[in-house]
Amino acid sequence: MRNLGRFMASDTVMTVDDLRRFMVEVFPQVHRDFTVVSVGPMTASVRLEVGERHLRPGGTVSGPAMFGVADVSMYVAVLAMIGPEALAVTTNMSIDFMRKPEAGRPVTAECRILKLGRALAVGDVLLYSEGVDSPVARAGVTYSIPPGRGARDARAGARSGLGDRADPV
Amino acid sequence: MRNLGRFMASDTVMTVDDLRRFMVEVFPQVHRDFTVVSVGPMTASVRLEVGERHLRPGGTVSGPAMFGVADVSMYVAVLAMIGPEALAVTTNMSIDFMRKPEAGRPVTAECRILKLGRALAVGDVLLYSEGVDSPVARAGVTYSIPPGRGARDARAGARSGLGDRADPV
Amino acid sequence: MRNLGRFMASDTVMTVDDLRRFMVEVFPQVHRDFTVVSVGPMTASVRLEVGERHLRPGGTVSGPAMFGVADVSMYVAVLAMIGPEALAVTTNMSIDFMRKPEAGRPVTAECRILKLGRALAVGDVLLYSEGVDSPVARAGVTYSIPPGRGARDARAGARSGLGDRADPV
Amino acid sequence: MRNLGRFMASDTVMTVDDLRRFMVEVFPQVHRDFTVVSVGPMTASVRLEVGERHLRPGGTVSGPAMFGVADVSMYVAVLAMIGPEALAVTTNMSIDFMRKPEAGRPVTAECRILKLGRALAVGDVLLYSEGVDSPVARAGVTYSIPPGRGARDARAGARSGLGDRADPV
Repeated sequence: MRNLGRFMASDTVMTVDDLRRFMVEVFPQVHRDFTVVSVGPMTASVRLEVGERHLRPGGTVSGPAMFGVADVSMYVAVLAMIGPEALAVTTNMSIDFMRKPEAGRPVTAECRILKLGRALAVGDVLLYSEGVDSPVARAGVTYSIPPGRGARDARAGARSGLGDRADPV
Repeated sequence: MRNLGRFMASDTVMTVDDLRRFMVEVFPQVHRDFTVVSVGPMTASVRLEVGERHLRPGGTVSGPAMFGVADVSMYVAVLAMIGPEALAVTTNMSIDFMRKPEAGRPVTAECRILKLGRALAVGDVLLYSEGVDSPVARAGVTYSIPPGRGARDARAGARSGLGDRADPV
Repeated sequence: MRNLGRFMASDTVMTVDDLRRFMVEVFPQVHRDFTVVSVGPMTASVRLEVGERHLRPGGTVSGPAMFGVADVSMYVAVLAMIGPEALAVTTNMSIDFMRKPEAGRPVTAECRILKLGRALAVGDVLLYSEGVDSPVARAGVTYSIPPGRGARDARAGARSGLGDRADPV
Repeated sequence: MRNLGRFMASDTVMTVDDLRRFMVEVFPQVHRDFTVVSVGPMTASVRLEVGERHLRPGGTVSGPAMFGVADVSMYVAVLAMIGPEALAVTTNMSIDFMRKPEAGRPVTAECRILKLGRALAVGDVLLYSEGVDSPVARAGVTYSIPPGRGARDARAGARSGLGDRADPV
């Protein structure tokens, strides 16, 4: 399987600490649910600290909670590349639930950005339940990026010789 | 646009009251968030009573909350057709966020089931923010139905002459 | 189920004949496969004239052929609203295959646009196999619209009192 | 990013040659379009030999052609694990078009299966245009597997100690 690293030419512009502070400021209702674990060029890892409010009968983690951590992981990955742009919003998420998560265990979302365009960012996310190797869910996520903030992909292409043509979005 | 009514041959087997009681029993954590508004053959309408925990900065309704009401509307629509099967689970949801919901207003999810097979049910949902005519989001939802409960489609086909061949799922 | 007609305030700017001529000019390879059946405000119907090249063993219509007619129906619906913009491109399609189409029969895609924004158009499509009432497949489609062509939704909102705020995309 | 290899415990049961012969027998209309490049445990790589019939104006590869190679790559990956089961069918595909493919160049689809259950297989695919490092498209694919053929996941779990609980699908 091809190594995606060859197109991840740009560095992050926010650290894990920057992102944690940003989450506390901008999302006071939910920042405690989510721990930013790590970020790298075009990648991020976020953990959902599973609590009672995230559970369904039998202790399984709810769909909305899984959606939430997948969504936050993409948001964090994008902001790590473009800076603290609070107006980036989800336009589409497609999520497949593949296995039942372990009762009451944290869920970690590992995101990779596949395209960081001028107006849209597209990525995918694998969700893991602590203690189980196989991903419990997978998501495709698309974010819209406000004008002026999304040009990283073209610049990355120029530096590394990827030859990315200007995308219409 | 074609009227889907011609393939909705079967009646519901649960009423709105049946479903409300079922939700209270089976989902004690969340039943207060959701009001079953109506059900009909292959359709259901569920309202999210938007509270502080469902909001993001600026008062907009969060993605997980929108996911939640879309998911519950499909669950309710399916159970209305097959009976109180608590083990039906979401396998896939694809959701498009199209417009920002009105701050603090309820969101109603209107679901129609497009296929009720032996093992999978497929439907779509339009989400409306109270006071705005255009849907704020749309979702495609697939549920898996435990063995023995999902045979309604074939029976409906036989009664109405739809000629549904046996589908593998 | 709510009538979507209340937000379809704008008229089409292309007729069926306009669209058929446009398809012949712009898509010489495939225009014979697709017949534009009808268009209306925010809706379109396109038929795939199923031939040998569209089939799989057993005579069933192939996935790519179903994808193709769903995609063209959204393209036609969008162009009917914004004019002959050949640069509109598909950014996302999510398609569910629900029933096996009838061997060798035409497949008709009925599309409705749910959002026609400044840069993105979002719609859904039901695909019907001639002679069968139940849809054989369903698709969600998102198109990107080149700058300057996608402002119909905001104008429609102003005229009809929908109060659509300017969307970021 | 976590290495998915830890859950790919089972070996393939078909080789590249087995799969090429199978494609010739079962899909006479399209086998020449697709070259099975490689298979491994839970992975496959298939190349679309781009011809005139796969193109749109300007030489770009059509959406249906991209859909086709993504779909075939998942089909091949699944059959490599469960044997020559011609009745496996696509139930869902969600595809994001991220970059314009190079005019007239082959497109290679690299698939990984994320779940191989008793009735459903879920995977994702990255599509590459020859000569460009960044993927041009990404797809999530779900296949239904006829009864009796899809038990590999549970057996794989037993051998490797993954502890996969019985999934309903």
